[in-house]
Amino acid sequence: MHKTDFGLIGLGVMGKSISLNVADNDFSISVYNRTEADEAHIVSEFIQQHSTYENLAGYTDITEFVRSIKRPRKILLMIKAGKAIDAVVAQLLPFLEDDDIIIDGGNSLYKDTIRRTESLASKNIHFVGCGISGGEEGARKGPSIMPGGSLEAYTHISPILEKIAAKDKNNKPCCVHVGTDGAGHFVKMVHNGIEYAEMQLLAEIYSILKKTHTNEEIASILSDWNTRSEASYLLEITIAILRKKEGHEYIIDRILDKALSKGTGSWSSKAALDIGMPSTMISSAVFARYVSAFKEQRVTLSKSFKKSNVSEGIEYSYLEKAYRFARIINHQQGFELIQEASKQYNWTLNLSEIARIWTNGCIIRSQFMDDSIEILQNHSNYFEDKKTFEALRNSEKYIVKVLQYRLNNRISLDTFSAAYNYWISMTTANSSANIIQAQRDYFGAHTYQRNDIDNSNFFHTNW
Amino acid sequence: MHKTDFGLIGLGVMGKSISLNVADNDFSISVYNRTEADEAHIVSEFIQQHSTYENLAGYTDITEFVRSIKRPRKILLMIKAGKAIDAVVAQLLPFLEDDDIIIDGGNSLYKDTIRRTESLASKNIHFVGCGISGGEEGARKGPSIMPGGSLEAYTHISPILEKIAAKDKNNKPCCVHVGTDGAGHFVKMVHNGIEYAEMQLLAEIYSILKKTHTNEEIASILSDWNTRSEASYLLEITIAILRKKEGHEYIIDRILDKALSKGTGSWSSKAALDIGMPSTMISSAVFARYVSAFKEQRVTLSKSFKKSNVSEGIEYSYLEKAYRFARIINHQQGFELIQEASKQYNWTLNLSEIARIWTNGCIIRSQFMDDSIEILQNHSNYFEDKKTFEALRNSEKYIVKVLQYRLNNRISLDTFSAAYNYWISMTTANSSANIIQAQRDYFGAHTYQRNDIDNSNFFHTNW
Repeated sequence: MHKTDFGLIGLGVMGKSISLNVADNDFSISVYNRTEADEAHIVSEFIQQHSTYENLAGYTDITEFVRSIKRPRKILLMIKAGKAIDAVVAQLLPFLEDDDIIIDGGNSLYKDTIRRTESLASKNIHFVGCGISGGEEGARKGPSIMPGGSLEAYTHISPILEKIAAKDKNNKPCCVHVGTDGAGHFVKMVHNGIEYAEMQLLAEIYSILKKTHTNEEIASILSDWNTRSEASYLLEITIAILRKKEGHEYIIDRILDKALSKGTGSWSSKAALDIGMPSTMISSAVFARYVSAFKEQRVTLSKSFKKSNVSEGIEYSYLEKAYRFARIINHQQGFELIQEASKQYNWTLNLSEIARIWTNGCIIRSQFMDDSIEILQNHSNYFEDKKTFEALRNSEKYIVKVLQYRLNNRISLDTFSAAYNYWISMTTANSSANIIQAQRDYFGAHTYQRNDIDNSNFFHTNW
Repeated sequence: MHKTDFGLIGLGVMGKSISLNVADNDFSISVYNRTEADEAHIVSEFIQQHSTYENLAGYTDITEFVRSIKRPRKILLMIKAGKAIDAVVAQLLPFLEDDDIIIDGGNSLYKDTIRRTESLASKNIHFVGCGISGGEEGARKGPSIMPGGSLEAYTHISPILEKIAAKDKNNKPCCVHVGTDGAGHFVKMVHNGIEYAEMQLLAEIYSILKKTHTNEEIASILSDWNTRSEASYLLEITIAILRKKEGHEYIIDRILDKALSKGTGSWSSKAALDIGMPSTMISSAVFARYVSAFKEQRVTLSKSFKKSNVSEGIEYSYLEKAYRFARIINHQQGFELIQEASKQYNWTLNLSEIARIWTNGCIIRSQFMDDSIEILQNHSNYFEDKKTFEALRNSEKYIVKVLQYRLNNRISLDTFSAAYNYWISMTTANSSANIIQAQRDYFGAHTYQRNDIDNSNFFHTNW
């Protein structure tokens, strides 16, 4: 029997979609799923449903599964991040041989990926922490793929990954060797962090417009934006969501306003805290979801407030420009977080290439991401690009108008506020941090630097 | 030779101060410091300098040090958090006997403390993770002490700890058994988190007032506040800082505006992210310090902005009321973080007692902390106290005025903004999180709850 080109473990929604994507691209593939208890039927059902695929083989025995794959084996894990990864790796190990490659396609924490890569390298097994974005549809038709790990491993897996990946506007695959060990998962984590803030900005725009407009009207305003520079996948689906009806009723009006979250937004915020970067927009978006969970308390406390008269609606063009402003800051913070991690972990990441593989297949694809390829090719961040900086400078007045408007209408704009505060802080020569340093020196003798003499020295005052 | 009542390892600034505090309170104490290289002289110098103390004995041999202490031994570690703790514990272990007690008085991460407590309990040694706040002066004259660990350990150490602790206004010690294992260090961590936000609020007030006032004028305004309900240690030292001169020059004008930080602010933010609480003020204060570090970039970018004419100054009484507002929210978020951790870790923490031991000796002592004892005795949070909630409701308009003012004057108010956003979110019945849930369901089939039918069920729409 012929050996297959590729192996995949984990036939959840994403695993199934990627299997078919691989098979569609004329690679033969072996698939395996746990066979315990109620999951015994998953493999056979999947194979039966897709019996027209001659290059798709199902296994319920892990030994046979591993043996069915060509060496060096390339085995993609599409299973839940966390302990399950270590368990499956341990299960696979006895059957693997030198230079085989395990690819972790889930949202694993980059620190775990660094640990696993190192531990498996000592056993001559390559471990590739691989971010995959695009949801079910992306996985099926072409996701954005962010593989980390050794370059050697990448040369083996790239023919398949680059084939199944989405294509950018120049028909290049949205897949690139991101960097060593945890780089792929770190970059995917920040992708999701940026996504959190992009989603929250749209939610905040909705919270402004719904005071004075119907769902259909909001959808129309956003549709107009979507014809211009703010065009994006998330904007597009938000428009579709606002228009979706169930019978006579808009679904959005029936969805409970308690947002849940998985790990990556919170992980991005924690990574920022660890490496010392002010990723305020991502964390504000995560915290906004947390606050939303206090629904019962919110309803109770709200009863002390009269429904106020809404002041005149805000000019749409102001809101659009403020949205643009906040999105640039969000991308600035996200890419700066990646760049700083790149320094601290010696990943030498290419920001422009990361922007490029995010232009299709993934959730944060947008016109602005397209523009970012060039900006980040020529500059190490958005602020250094004169045109982008001028755009921010000129639209500051619009985010000011939006923030003024919300103050008159009791609207919480966590993520817009974070964008504004960051911008003001970053463009203010003298901050108030001298007070913080003085306080720290006062109560804890933590010392401070001076602004007039050599500031590599530290001083203490006997207050 | 008589055995001593207490042992202390680590003669840094804090260790020395606490040793003398213990000795002053008529307990005999053995002190030990590492004897390697340049640290060999530390013990002898310390003992010589304080030769009038007959109850103070210095050791450079760890065996002799341990043997010199009465059983069950109570040994306080005043050393750097992290690996050093594990190293010293390992060094001590061979000489310890059943029921001896190691007290970690540094700012260790609560998760490490949980691990150490468990591991040492299996060896019949008590481990007490113990927060200590007050800086050098507090340590010497009476700090606020937050010991975790077993109640049994506490009964042994309480006679000493309660004696050396600061006293509250009823002359009760600012020391109480906080809860088991990591509780003491968790509570100390949040103490520091609250401190970060309190410091940042004062820095933001300074950034508003310095646009239109001299240091002396700002100090006078704050002095006035300090005679009323906003009185606090941090306000007091900020006034002293603003007035401090070196020759003809105010020191504050010469301090570089780049704020450094140690772990606890970032840890508090990470703990909040982990346990799902929106501690937005603490994290905004941490991120504000991070942004301040980009001094060179800030100076460069600021050159694109003309020095704008400052609009008329803000009414002081508005600012004072906004400050009050933000401080209440800060305490609300801090105590809510503690309360949620208490649930998740089964610590059954007493919020009112925590407020009480924070009324003296520690950095965040204040008139409002005094008031908090009663509020938190009768209510599980500040919002449930009618008087406090009404105070917030009535002063919302003042924080609005402050936030409006800053929009006209390019002032970044990260932590004031966070206070306002949280308040608005928590008093708004219907948030915009339905958009987030719809988006998540759209691209990832993550499902959502409904607001009209039983919301324990989850639904998916075929968008």
